[in-house]
Amino acid sequence: MVLRTDKKLPRATADLVAREANVSRVAVSRAFNPNASLKQEKRELILQVARELNYTPDMAARALVTKRSHLVAMIVPDVCSPWESQEIDALTTALQAEGFATLLFKAKSDFSMDPMLLTYMRGFNPDSVIAFTENIEPDILTGFLDRAVPIYVIYDDAEPFGGMTTSSLFDRLFVQQKEGIEQAVALLKGYGVNRVAYLSGKQQSLANTERQRMITQVLAAHGLAAPVIVPGDFTYDTAYRATLDLFRVGNGADAVFASNDVGAFGVIDALRHDLQLSVPGDVKVIGFDDIPQSNWKSYNLTTVRIDLEDRVRALVRLILRRLKAPDSAPLVETLTTRLVVRGTVG
Amino acid sequence: MVLRTDKKLPRATADLVAREANVSRVAVSRAFNPNASLKQEKRELILQVARELNYTPDMAARALVTKRSHLVAMIVPDVCSPWESQEIDALTTALQAEGFATLLFKAKSDFSMDPMLLTYMRGFNPDSVIAFTENIEPDILTGFLDRAVPIYVIYDDAEPFGGMTTSSLFDRLFVQQKEGIEQAVALLKGYGVNRVAYLSGKQQSLANTERQRMITQVLAAHGLAAPVIVPGDFTYDTAYRATLDLFRVGNGADAVFASNDVGAFGVIDALRHDLQLSVPGDVKVIGFDDIPQSNWKSYNLTTVRIDLEDRVRALVRLILRRLKAPDSAPLVETLTTRLVVRGTVG
Repeated sequence: MVLRTDKKLPRATADLVAREANVSRVAVSRAFNPNASLKQEKRELILQVARELNYTPDMAARALVTKRSHLVAMIVPDVCSPWESQEIDALTTALQAEGFATLLFKAKSDFSMDPMLLTYMRGFNPDSVIAFTENIEPDILTGFLDRAVPIYVIYDDAEPFGGMTTSSLFDRLFVQQKEGIEQAVALLKGYGVNRVAYLSGKQQSLANTERQRMITQVLAAHGLAAPVIVPGDFTYDTAYRATLDLFRVGNGADAVFASNDVGAFGVIDALRHDLQLSVPGDVKVIGFDDIPQSNWKSYNLTTVRIDLEDRVRALVRLILRRLKAPDSAPLVETLTTRLVVRGTVG
Repeated sequence: MVLRTDKKLPRATADLVAREANVSRVAVSRAFNPNASLKQEKRELILQVARELNYTPDMAARALVTKRSHLVAMIVPDVCSPWESQEIDALTTALQAEGFATLLFKAKSDFSMDPMLLTYMRGFNPDSVIAFTENIEPDILTGFLDRAVPIYVIYDDAEPFGGMTTSSLFDRLFVQQKEGIEQAVALLKGYGVNRVAYLSGKQQSLANTERQRMITQVLAAHGLAAPVIVPGDFTYDTAYRATLDLFRVGNGADAVFASNDVGAFGVIDALRHDLQLSVPGDVKVIGFDDIPQSNWKSYNLTTVRIDLEDRVRALVRLILRRLKAPDSAPLVETLTTRLVVRGTVG
């Protein structure tokens, strides 16, 4: 049997570390905060002494004093797509470099939030929360937060504040979809496409609603008819079945614009493997996101790109700016989109 | 300008909630702990009163008293594959249902852990840590933990304790790869395959080392030659290029066994789109993991399945069992693998 090792030293205090390293108590605090400025060699000396003395700042005790938990909460849908998994991953890496850990809170399948979870979230006292209006409205969320100012990701080009009327303070990451969608529609028009279908995402998703609205608007501006709406839910399987229906029961389309890349893969596979149609010869397909799989040879998907690294950097900037200025007016960052041309249109 | 709302009530105390709900102080604590037994209607009443009075238990204050942080740390590689992203996702969902939040800590690209991160981990005082020996050895990790007993995921069939000599207490999730690999080799042999190549994963990954060892062993047991080792790193792009090398510079193979599904997709695409070879006609391909993409029509991959839901359930069981018995001897859960037969062998 293996027993617990008893070799551990008892935890030292910060005062002892300060004394042994011959620095101030404040310098010890700073050494453990990657955001605090401190000479590199001084930081290394303090961390070295701390290791030798077995000193670690206790985040729980520290949170009570500093009112900083070093936790960032992120509200995500109950089932994550590759895009969301990758965003969580990239955000965690970026936050870790700034001394924060990521806490995930998952919404229910109807996109609503369990109040018990929100109570938990409040209990963890996060320094920031990243949220979507379809999961929880700012007015409700801020009621569950003590001092964190939430960040909302808003897909919208027309309404500067997402059309929301609210008295709550929250920061905004705007994702402007228009530019990429305009490039996509121009490309389709250049290839003589007339009948466009839009494979939707989940109805509760505002990203989906805004994508559909913007595509319809841009098609009209180019003198093209409104798209046939094919109901999807961002998954491959639903996209596959919906495409069979569109071409076997419905009237088909010259091009399918999918609400995300994973849906576009389902469309392509249904066209090629079941309907024996050629992509892009018979039908053109465009996705949305530009996940790494879009570059895989079996799909080689033309898609509207949201740059994940840019998105994560913008979120981290919003978090750090807000922590430096807790009472400032709403902060805003803006992302644009662009078309990545590959092999499914042409 | 939007101003911060001032409508929030000050936080109430647990004592006030107990008085108003006419229950004991202990019942209030239990109501906020999904693991504590409490009649459903009593729990709902207390949560209702707590909402009305704006009471939330503060996790930081609570952690100091109860020594429970309700946080589970997970150590993952610096860049997550679809498999790991999905595991993080599923584990977070399962832990959330038990009242825990997941904290991610990412190892460096050489698989080592930043000591600063470990110091942070200790500061958050997690109730449990899920780790891999290639990222950090149990003896080092336990030195950074106060009371959490880590869980190690161990891919191994021969050595009952992964061959590690250690005096540290840790729990084990064993993944037995042998059964699924035996089924895969039998299938390949049945189709008359002679020359097998193994597309490796990252060299630092023990999952990779154990897969290679087990495949070599099983091939020998079936009277087949040791596999040609093709260096990979679990990514699509490297798998694609390595496959071109294997067939253009090297002597090719009758079958390629990839260390993960994503690598298998790269192999298939290189064979079909660049080398103009048919899968499974000219070359058979087998993957490892069974991620959802393996079922997509473009790949339709035969693969050795590790059941993600089973894996997550086993991890949650280990966490809960350990919290109930902090001093018990090492706890063990075991997962097996099985072959999922689809279209890339036959």
